[in-house]
Amino acid sequence: MSAPDVVTLLRAALGERVDTDPLHLDAARADKSGHAATGAPLAIVHAASVPDVQATARIAHATGTPIVTRGAGTGLAGGAHAGPGEIVLSMRAMDRILEVRPDDLLAVVEPGILNADLNRALAAHDLWWAPDPASREISTVGGNIATGAGGLLCAKYGVVRDAVLGVDLVLADGRLLRLGHRSVKGVTGLDLTSLVVGSEGILGVVVGATLRLRHRVPGATRTLTASFPDVRRAAEGAAAVTASGIQPAIMELMDAASLAAVHRLLALPAPAPGVAQLTIQTDGPAATAEAEALTEILSASGATVRLAADDAEADLLWRIRRSLHPAMETLGTTLIEDVSVPRSAMPAMFDEIARIERDYGLIIPTVCHAGDGNLHPNFVFEGDTVPDRVWHAADELFQAALRLGGTLTGEHGVGLLKRRWLADELGDDQWQLQRDIARVFDPTGIMNPGKVFAP
Amino acid sequence: MSAPDVVTLLRAALGERVDTDPLHLDAARADKSGHAATGAPLAIVHAASVPDVQATARIAHATGTPIVTRGAGTGLAGGAHAGPGEIVLSMRAMDRILEVRPDDLLAVVEPGILNADLNRALAAHDLWWAPDPASREISTVGGNIATGAGGLLCAKYGVVRDAVLGVDLVLADGRLLRLGHRSVKGVTGLDLTSLVVGSEGILGVVVGATLRLRHRVPGATRTLTASFPDVRRAAEGAAAVTASGIQPAIMELMDAASLAAVHRLLALPAPAPGVAQLTIQTDGPAATAEAEALTEILSASGATVRLAADDAEADLLWRIRRSLHPAMETLGTTLIEDVSVPRSAMPAMFDEIARIERDYGLIIPTVCHAGDGNLHPNFVFEGDTVPDRVWHAADELFQAALRLGGTLTGEHGVGLLKRRWLADELGDDQWQLQRDIARVFDPTGIMNPGKVFAP
Repeated sequence: MSAPDVVTLLRAALGERVDTDPLHLDAARADKSGHAATGAPLAIVHAASVPDVQATARIAHATGTPIVTRGAGTGLAGGAHAGPGEIVLSMRAMDRILEVRPDDLLAVVEPGILNADLNRALAAHDLWWAPDPASREISTVGGNIATGAGGLLCAKYGVVRDAVLGVDLVLADGRLLRLGHRSVKGVTGLDLTSLVVGSEGILGVVVGATLRLRHRVPGATRTLTASFPDVRRAAEGAAAVTASGIQPAIMELMDAASLAAVHRLLALPAPAPGVAQLTIQTDGPAATAEAEALTEILSASGATVRLAADDAEADLLWRIRRSLHPAMETLGTTLIEDVSVPRSAMPAMFDEIARIERDYGLIIPTVCHAGDGNLHPNFVFEGDTVPDRVWHAADELFQAALRLGGTLTGEHGVGLLKRRWLADELGDDQWQLQRDIARVFDPTGIMNPGKVFAP
Repeated sequence: MSAPDVVTLLRAALGERVDTDPLHLDAARADKSGHAATGAPLAIVHAASVPDVQATARIAHATGTPIVTRGAGTGLAGGAHAGPGEIVLSMRAMDRILEVRPDDLLAVVEPGILNADLNRALAAHDLWWAPDPASREISTVGGNIATGAGGLLCAKYGVVRDAVLGVDLVLADGRLLRLGHRSVKGVTGLDLTSLVVGSEGILGVVVGATLRLRHRVPGATRTLTASFPDVRRAAEGAAAVTASGIQPAIMELMDAASLAAVHRLLALPAPAPGVAQLTIQTDGPAATAEAEALTEILSASGATVRLAADDAEADLLWRIRRSLHPAMETLGTTLIEDVSVPRSAMPAMFDEIARIERDYGLIIPTVCHAGDGNLHPNFVFEGDTVPDRVWHAADELFQAALRLGGTLTGEHGVGLLKRRWLADELGDDQWQLQRDIARVFDPTGIMNPGKVFAP
């Protein structure tokens, strides 16, 4: 069926929810990865209800038209790029909180709500949804589910997979499935909820989610920084923290290049050359005791440790970590990578990054969720397109992470950008098996085609 | 191919690992559910290595012979029953700990190791694997993974799904897949590790697992009991605990019938008629403060609270809970059920159990993991076979749990015993989708056929 006919069918079914404004179509070509589809999609459907999603899927299915589901478009792997011949299904308008149950520690939400908006609403009940991607102010819960998002608090409080009890999923043919449950435990049949978490829009459209909540952690938090003469020793310091048995709420590592860039941006005194830094937050009833114990451990590891005296000082210390992305923008265009390795391999992974910097003549400022071994190397370059040299360097990064027992992506997903490396990690047999499983959900291959699995 | 030929092929490939001792074959007909296959299986293969498992799978695949994977045979849902024409693949001899990494908080193990043996070995490193099914002294890690086991500590420390980073899986045709990763985070492709957890042997054979460990919780635990005049008020007391924001390590509820049976068995003074009891453990740095706060909360809920003065008294209080199964055996044969409901629905679920007891003239002593809403009603009857009347009562129990937003099985699995109710919970569309996914792993349907999905 020709493109105009598909749009005509969509308009007949969905009226003014169908958007063909060229500016909007152009925006849907890209996410925040810095890459974009070659041309504009057919139309955007701004779904307001589950039946809207089902109607869109039925038309797409009947006409063989691809659907690209989008939340806020903040992804970093090209998972929500939409191009010529594709329908964009925007879930952003489906942003209601349908239910909050403090007694059951769960909430039922629509996927378009922003993570931070949900958590502001939950705070009134003294509850929170733990996944806290850095994008939480601008990314949707549905997007967090689609990517299997992580964040800073994961080592202590888990990732999205740990915080979703069930999802409602519209299949490619428009049927609605209710996966998972409202109880804490449940093992009836296969765990399709976990399969949908992180599936990047290829299995169906998440139209609702039952989220597992936590009580907010009582008491004040404590924050400290530990400065090391080089990044390897900072990574070893992080390992010493893990080995101590103390579980910080947050433990972030900034290498010298990222720390220096942020200090420049914030007009703070420049750190000594090579200095890398851990920033750590403890929480809960033992927050102060743990912060004091960590101060001793890290000092013994050769760090200069500063325990924030009050919340104002702690906020300043966290502002340095949070200013990483704006600081990177001052350096040029960045490809934000996302490898994850076993915690013991962090020092070796930083060695590999230093080697790749040397071999390719690149600067790769790197921050790391050091509590869980998830590194975000930022490949900095000039211009709009990732140069081949940077992709070659990224390839070396991925191969190094795999050699160290790690993974291509800790929390951003595969999308378009990493699909060519997927079989390197999974192996050919598992790659094919995963693709066949996706085909059970979507036999004609209209759900976000070309993402995750290369065509 | 005839049965003797299959055994001949197995013997040629696996020699003395092939066991056709009639006593052993007879034992493999049953698990601990109290039910058994109508006849004996063909043979038991005592796998000692991954190649043994692959060789068995290749012969099974080539001859179209079903494989039933077994650990210790302690399941409660008939998931490992083996009958005529089937090969039993026993993983019990593959019980090595291949790797313990305190720095990465992970262990790599073979599936046949007993949960408690693993935890005794990990204790030397001050580590533990959190899943703690009541069967932990006699059940294998592989069986825990196959059922998606839970236990007493789940509300605070998670279930098996939360504690497995990766599994090695031999497919029906003998190919080996390595699923998951060694890093804390990882979202490369679909989460097949979670799909395998709880899949009850229908997707393949788990031949190895990378487990997520925890540091042992430092400090002493505190234990208290709260006695209520009836079970409904005890369930409401549990809800008050959850609402308080305090997360006990363990919170168990025993109804009057189960409490009275245990007191009889242990020759303790009989509790007053109708009295139900919560037994609660707190841990961590705030253990005492939390126990004292819970004492106030539960007293205000109408309970008589006893805070154990020392470990010896605490051990006695937990001995009462742990003696439930022996106490049930003094009453007759039991069908141990396993429904799970949202925590707020626990009082209503106990009302339903009381109604079913009245309607069917049955005694259904019930214990409940009250921290997570997982109830184990014990249907007591005479003789070896579950009477139809008990199955009708169990059907009412399942339907009530589903009406209350719950699930058929919180931690035991579907196996043979609950497959006829599976579609009631999943719906026909999801039932078919799940079955089709299983067929991607096992196209000819030789992996534990007839389990989970009715033929």
